[in-house]
Amino acid sequence: MPDSNFAERSEEQVSGAKVIAQALKTQDVEYIFGIVGIPVTEIAIAAQQLGIKYIGMRNEQAACYAASAIGYLTGRPGVCLVVSGPGLIHALGGMANANMNCWYTECCMSPPISMAETSAVRMAASVIRNAKQPLLIIGKGAAYAHAEENIKKLVEQYKLPFLPTPMGKGVVPDNHPNCVGAARSRALQFADVIVLFGARLNWILHFGLPPRYQPDVKFIQVDICAEELGNNVKPTVTLLGDVSAVSKQLLEELDKTSWEYPPESKWWKTLREKMKSNEAASKELASKKSLPMNYYTVFYHVQEQLPRDCFVVSEGANTMDIGRTVLQNYLPRHRLDAGTFGTMGVGLGFAIAAAMVAKDRHPGQRVICVEGDSAFGFSGMEVETICRYNLPIILLVVNNNGIYQGFDMDAWKETLKFQDPTAVVPPMCLLPNSHYEQIMTAFGGKGYFVETPEELQKSLRQSLADTSKPSLINIMIEPQATRKAQDFHWLTRSNM
Amino acid sequence: MPDSNFAERSEEQVSGAKVIAQALKTQDVEYIFGIVGIPVTEIAIAAQQLGIKYIGMRNEQAACYAASAIGYLTGRPGVCLVVSGPGLIHALGGMANANMNCWYTECCMSPPISMAETSAVRMAASVIRNAKQPLLIIGKGAAYAHAEENIKKLVEQYKLPFLPTPMGKGVVPDNHPNCVGAARSRALQFADVIVLFGARLNWILHFGLPPRYQPDVKFIQVDICAEELGNNVKPTVTLLGDVSAVSKQLLEELDKTSWEYPPESKWWKTLREKMKSNEAASKELASKKSLPMNYYTVFYHVQEQLPRDCFVVSEGANTMDIGRTVLQNYLPRHRLDAGTFGTMGVGLGFAIAAAMVAKDRHPGQRVICVEGDSAFGFSGMEVETICRYNLPIILLVVNNNGIYQGFDMDAWKETLKFQDPTAVVPPMCLLPNSHYEQIMTAFGGKGYFVETPEELQKSLRQSLADTSKPSLINIMIEPQATRKAQDFHWLTRSNM
Amino acid sequence: MPDSNFAERSEEQVSGAKVIAQALKTQDVEYIFGIVGIPVTEIAIAAQQLGIKYIGMRNEQAACYAASAIGYLTGRPGVCLVVSGPGLIHALGGMANANMNCWYTECCMSPPISMAETSAVRMAASVIRNAKQPLLIIGKGAAYAHAEENIKKLVEQYKLPFLPTPMGKGVVPDNHPNCVGAARSRALQFADVIVLFGARLNWILHFGLPPRYQPDVKFIQVDICAEELGNNVKPTVTLLGDVSAVSKQLLEELDKTSWEYPPESKWWKTLREKMKSNEAASKELASKKSLPMNYYTVFYHVQEQLPRDCFVVSEGANTMDIGRTVLQNYLPRHRLDAGTFGTMGVGLGFAIAAAMVAKDRHPGQRVICVEGDSAFGFSGMEVETICRYNLPIILLVVNNNGIYQGFDMDAWKETLKFQDPTAVVPPMCLLPNSHYEQIMTAFGGKGYFVETPEELQKSLRQSLADTSKPSLINIMIEPQATRKAQDFHWLTRSNM
Amino acid sequence: MPDSNFAERSEEQVSGAKVIAQALKTQDVEYIFGIVGIPVTEIAIAAQQLGIKYIGMRNEQAACYAASAIGYLTGRPGVCLVVSGPGLIHALGGMANANMNCWYTECCMSPPISMAETSAVRMAASVIRNAKQPLLIIGKGAAYAHAEENIKKLVEQYKLPFLPTPMGKGVVPDNHPNCVGAARSRALQFADVIVLFGARLNWILHFGLPPRYQPDVKFIQVDICAEELGNNVKPTVTLLGDVSAVSKQLLEELDKTSWEYPPESKWWKTLREKMKSNEAASKELASKKSLPMNYYTVFYHVQEQLPRDCFVVSEGANTMDIGRTVLQNYLPRHRLDAGTFGTMGVGLGFAIAAAMVAKDRHPGQRVICVEGDSAFGFSGMEVETICRYNLPIILLVVNNNGIYQGFDMDAWKETLKFQDPTAVVPPMCLLPNSHYEQIMTAFGGKGYFVETPEELQKSLRQSLADTSKPSLINIMIEPQATRKAQDFHWLTRSNM
Repeated sequence: MPDSNFAERSEEQVSGAKVIAQALKTQDVEYIFGIVGIPVTEIAIAAQQLGIKYIGMRNEQAACYAASAIGYLTGRPGVCLVVSGPGLIHALGGMANANMNCWYTECCMSPPISMAETSAVRMAASVIRNAKQPLLIIGKGAAYAHAEENIKKLVEQYKLPFLPTPMGKGVVPDNHPNCVGAARSRALQFADVIVLFGARLNWILHFGLPPRYQPDVKFIQVDICAEELGNNVKPTVTLLGDVSAVSKQLLEELDKTSWEYPPESKWWKTLREKMKSNEAASKELASKKSLPMNYYTVFYHVQEQLPRDCFVVSEGANTMDIGRTVLQNYLPRHRLDAGTFGTMGVGLGFAIAAAMVAKDRHPGQRVICVEGDSAFGFSGMEVETICRYNLPIILLVVNNNGIYQGFDMDAWKETLKFQDPTAVVPPMCLLPNSHYEQIMTAFGGKGYFVETPEELQKSLRQSLADTSKPSLINIMIEPQATRKAQDFHWLTRSNM
Repeated sequence: MPDSNFAERSEEQVSGAKVIAQALKTQDVEYIFGIVGIPVTEIAIAAQQLGIKYIGMRNEQAACYAASAIGYLTGRPGVCLVVSGPGLIHALGGMANANMNCWYTECCMSPPISMAETSAVRMAASVIRNAKQPLLIIGKGAAYAHAEENIKKLVEQYKLPFLPTPMGKGVVPDNHPNCVGAARSRALQFADVIVLFGARLNWILHFGLPPRYQPDVKFIQVDICAEELGNNVKPTVTLLGDVSAVSKQLLEELDKTSWEYPPESKWWKTLREKMKSNEAASKELASKKSLPMNYYTVFYHVQEQLPRDCFVVSEGANTMDIGRTVLQNYLPRHRLDAGTFGTMGVGLGFAIAAAMVAKDRHPGQRVICVEGDSAFGFSGMEVETICRYNLPIILLVVNNNGIYQGFDMDAWKETLKFQDPTAVVPPMCLLPNSHYEQIMTAFGGKGYFVETPEELQKSLRQSLADTSKPSLINIMIEPQATRKAQDFHWLTRSNM
Repeated sequence: MPDSNFAERSEEQVSGAKVIAQALKTQDVEYIFGIVGIPVTEIAIAAQQLGIKYIGMRNEQAACYAASAIGYLTGRPGVCLVVSGPGLIHALGGMANANMNCWYTECCMSPPISMAETSAVRMAASVIRNAKQPLLIIGKGAAYAHAEENIKKLVEQYKLPFLPTPMGKGVVPDNHPNCVGAARSRALQFADVIVLFGARLNWILHFGLPPRYQPDVKFIQVDICAEELGNNVKPTVTLLGDVSAVSKQLLEELDKTSWEYPPESKWWKTLREKMKSNEAASKELASKKSLPMNYYTVFYHVQEQLPRDCFVVSEGANTMDIGRTVLQNYLPRHRLDAGTFGTMGVGLGFAIAAAMVAKDRHPGQRVICVEGDSAFGFSGMEVETICRYNLPIILLVVNNNGIYQGFDMDAWKETLKFQDPTAVVPPMCLLPNSHYEQIMTAFGGKGYFVETPEELQKSLRQSLADTSKPSLINIMIEPQATRKAQDFHWLTRSNM
Repeated sequence: MPDSNFAERSEEQVSGAKVIAQALKTQDVEYIFGIVGIPVTEIAIAAQQLGIKYIGMRNEQAACYAASAIGYLTGRPGVCLVVSGPGLIHALGGMANANMNCWYTECCMSPPISMAETSAVRMAASVIRNAKQPLLIIGKGAAYAHAEENIKKLVEQYKLPFLPTPMGKGVVPDNHPNCVGAARSRALQFADVIVLFGARLNWILHFGLPPRYQPDVKFIQVDICAEELGNNVKPTVTLLGDVSAVSKQLLEELDKTSWEYPPESKWWKTLREKMKSNEAASKELASKKSLPMNYYTVFYHVQEQLPRDCFVVSEGANTMDIGRTVLQNYLPRHRLDAGTFGTMGVGLGFAIAAAMVAKDRHPGQRVICVEGDSAFGFSGMEVETICRYNLPIILLVVNNNGIYQGFDMDAWKETLKFQDPTAVVPPMCLLPNSHYEQIMTAFGGKGYFVETPEELQKSLRQSLADTSKPSLINIMIEPQATRKAQDFHWLTRSNM
């Protein structure tokens, strides 16, 4: 811990900084996220002089989450710059999160492309052709491999139903007629053959086990990582290789016969019926007029105005889970969420990274960051970073006054009249009616506090129209709001 | 990552939670800081049912800093409750920080008290009696050992000059006539015998090395930790034992003769003259009328209104360093700062812990938390926690628009007119004129944006007068403000 | 730490042991190496009852090295059974060594086979066809992938020169006319295109850098591990996939034209001349009659009697390096040495593993374990294990009384007459004339102490003839013996 | 892994080596244990040139055990020199073992001495005076603190019974009339007040819990490490400080009254009777004439000839446990065994360290190293080191052909006639009748193979008489030999 007198620092440090910056440039690094301090300030300055962009954050935790998202979004390494000691320790969360999501550059960045063995491809095609109730599951590995073109062909040419995982959304657009996301539980439960494209059988997919799946379901697993193959469930066929290249091999193999999956099969009928009834149930919830609003009402209105080409970033518990079922993605690699590790605090870092990428590679695209109120608290101060760099981000805080659920203001005040809140307030409750939108106005952005569907519609319209500054919409919902009734009561997340 | 359906959770988890809560109660735990999630929510609830206070925070980082401060303030273990995975990783910063500050309960909590060897005490007394230019340095180890009574007697009975370390401030009041803090550099540089009471020769004390010290200065080191003895410098006498018990041994030994250090010695004269001239220089800086204000003006006015019995928490670079020289402590264990490890992000966690202790053990005392604007960003969202529990905290954000130094608003706007800020804005700059006080008003507290001494005085007066809610005073200072000229130009921190 | 009273142990432990043993059996484990203690003894017994072989070793270090070699030799996991605490720590060396050699089952064991992208294969074939001075390098990855058939076809059909790495020896026999091992340095230095089959550009291959290579040499890298691709040097073409499958792809692609590399090219002429002169120089050294013997004389005589189908295991400094250039392998996966990590102490563990595999899969084959005297010391006590299980191993200890070099007996005695050896004896010296062969006779095996070529010939003949017990030949060589003069003086290992 | 061409190495390395060697010299390092390799050879040579002794070992494991013992024996740091990579990993065992035994220099080496608080000493004295059935337990902490003089005075002046822990043996001689080691179980079980001098309530002391202790036994714990206080059991009084200084405080406090513990109390009578009957039982076992010998016969004869001033080092299961009850120590810090962590493989490294210390500080003293046959196997090759440096060590291998127990030769041969030993031989069996003494003769030392009491007596006599070289006595015992019947059947170790 250190002197602030830059001028007196030794020449050595300065030239060392240049060497490091040059090395980063040689590795094609475009973005550095970090917090400076002695002696890393010079590295940031040297990097800027070489044309690398430096984004100064407010906590190393968020900086590291941002850097890890860059790797996923651009296929080139993102860098996180921190001081030693506490800075490094604060950044560990990001490193662990990236690891759990398989974003370590050494694993994913290799340019050479491998394909699956020919005989295995043949066997996979045969299993698919013989499936009675087939299902494709599209994971973030498919997005990362840029497999969108080949997988879309597979879906359309052979008339197959598909389901995206959270970050696989958008590889094939969510509104594609073959997307059975609205019948997710049903599709998983009764499929007899499932092809996994860069998707893992982790908790989000219920580990591939009964009762969420048929006991004798056949898995065909397409993955670049040999270590992923056969986790939790023994696949019938494993196709080791680049997800896009293997999809192409499958296309070529299936092309050899005139087969297609019958679009009027009983399976398609079942799925379409279930989708219809689920969508109706959601719509009913969404159309409820009672106030405060529920999750479905909120997301229904957001979805109505969501630009087709925006990035969607999300974290939270119900906010992320329910939001995922309603908000649609139309482009690959435009969805980022808390992921396999369920890390809270990633949202704003991810949004900032996505906004940097949007500005440089997709001018005009917006980033919509959908946060639960508790999740927002982990890195809310990064709003200052968003304002400082004037990033094209719209933050939605879905506010139920707590973690999972909270108090309303009257109950809160009554409770506190005579008691110490640390002794009696349930641990999952936050302050009712927090004005998170003022975190945005404090730094010059636009803030909205909304309590009705009309206010929500209007604030969204204004936020989307105003491209001159970021905005935050603080959306008050029913503190006890939960999701609609589920078919399954065990581990009720992510299903519909 | 988790289901929200509490009712369906198994009986086992619930009773496991009770067992853990009971174990914490048995260990005399009073406070738990944390963020709940599956499956630790029940632990928090069970703990509350046993009378343990639960303080829900917004990021595990801050929760862990708060818990570690409890150990220091109360001598009983503080507990941090987090979920596994990302929660645990977020908490690592607090654990590392506690370790660097020697707050691990296993080291500090042991009830048995050890004393120094009799012959070593005798030798130390003899070295002190023969000192020409003696100096006592009082560290946080003295505060932790409750050595205030014995050390004050040593100072007064033998007329010795003393100097507190940052967290040693208040063991003997800063305004004691024998405190030579205002002549710190001089005292260190010319002392021939220095007695360290639970203080380390780390970077804050310039490692005990020339040119900041006489090459032949004799150190007498009093410490509870054998591992600390002889770090950096070989002491002439080492007194291993409880700092309070050893101070008493020293008192008894020195009492055997009628010696006292002559109050009219040349050493005392030198020190008093230096203090006078330093205080005059500070006062001159403080009285400058130019706007924006400088650090000294700000702290001069804060000191004028600072309640004698308040807790002072501080973090930042210049904010913490300069603030420490101006703001006075009158009570032991009422000063917490970023400490040896220089960790940014500890301030609000520490302030929350201090406020909990104040409410329970020192009703009516306030916590003044003095933050640099960059430091505040690390855990600013904890303001919601402060408001939720209505804690007696006044936050001062000393705002120079950056880390070490920043831009002013006009320069900022000019810069950004044609350029991408991530490419050109210096890494240490933050958004000019950020309205941090709105972070407080967002949650129902009082916020002040102050630019003049008069506004500062008024906002302080109002904050102190209003005990019904917390407040935050956002104090704008000169973006290029630094400290007054120093005698030493190498490693210019912490000296005066 | 443990009671020896087996009968009193609880039922739970016993049934737990059975569960573990059954799990190992299900994973197709055939061999367990270990040292028992409370509470793992029961696991070993339970495993034996299920038909798994248990080999009790004398130090966990050697046990772990043995277990790791099983994975390489059989393609099925080897298991090391140790007690917790010290046992586990002793075993870490084996785990680290296996990792450095890429023997972790999770990486190598996956049944699915991947192939290289078609276009990359086409490009590689084109680069090979246009090479003026091509070279194939065959690594242990080729051996592990069972690529022998396809690579031999590539060598023979297209008349290409090849070079094996230490553990790649035998994939194509060392005495194949296209093997240019005897002109190794020349081949590396002047090749313009090098195809790496499961071989790494590590220190053994001089990192692929000048001056050991042409600055513009083109590398084609065939490997199963994406992480290995592009280490140290940027390859012209990378073929990611199973080494055998990719070799077959290359064969099919090259087959499409009638090309072969001209057997009368200048490159082949240069290589053949260099091989001739190097072999002559080696032969001259080998035929030296002076005593003590030198390394070349020793290995020349060993090579003369080496059974064509034996396993060769080796470790040491000069012993391993020079031995590798003289001792020939004719079968794949029949050579094990200290490997990339240069670990000393692996030899006897590897030899024991190879002997177990030989007994079960290749009855009648012998294991020849060539050890430097220092290397032998790391795990010499495993000779008891060899004798206990009566394994078909012949140990050769090439004894120069030291590490790199030693004293002779007279110089040693003179030195010690008046001085403390710990103060003056060079750290690399061991006791002269140690009778390591008695370590073998102590346990009932045959021991030989040999000082002349005739004694060496005779002892080898007898050892090979006597299949009833293991033997150890302690071969005394010139304590200052080194290798023959090298063309390159920088990093003089492994080249010829 | 490395070139052997020393001359070509760069100057930098050489001077770096000198700097390191000088730093070690400055730290008063006397001994380095290690195995050299590139680039640490030069460090060893440079150290020798500065007068530091270098002992080249055969495996880093043993080197590290030796270095850790130096710290305990001399109070100055021992150093282990290894190459990076595998060398470091091999050394981890020693580091872990030293840690478990609290031999890390940073903890134990501090010169300053601390004492216990006066009031706590007063309370402890009062508890002792009121004890009905007192017991002192003397641990290795007492040995390390050089507390022998003060503790002996406590024992004699106040007529108190005492019990040493394994490495506490010799602080007060084992044959002192107040030593109740021969009634260990009885003494622990019925004592009402136990004073622990630098001894831990770990598994060796049955964690201080019933039924091995009275439920209401009062512990007084004297220890230098605050962290050790109160482990497992809550002490009635804790005396934190240097064990010798605190013993002196206790002496002075007890001196204030004329109290002594009545030598004719019922407690003393009970203990003396139990000792008598236990000693008779042991003697009966020892005098058994049947062959092969049992443990008691062996140790009885060893004890008869054991020099009073020798170092005793021991490891093994029954060998160490039973040997400890029979072999007596008369000097402090002359007993080393496998310790708290129960690490096998430490024996020869410890013996080598003890021999180096004996040569330099106690000329003429011998080291008797008592090994089980399995334990010997872990580092048996260090016999070469012992011979190379001609160290004054006598090795006793107590050989029951196995771990805990083994086969006899006839049973072994019968078993193997038709079966694969790896499939059927119990995991704890070693080769019957191994001639471990040849490991010694292989390197020029004296070896003895003994099967009868007479041969044992004779070989001991000769080994002790011949001071010109080390020797190894391989003592064959009954393969199924165990200890005599115990009062307690649960956890039957270490009691009598």
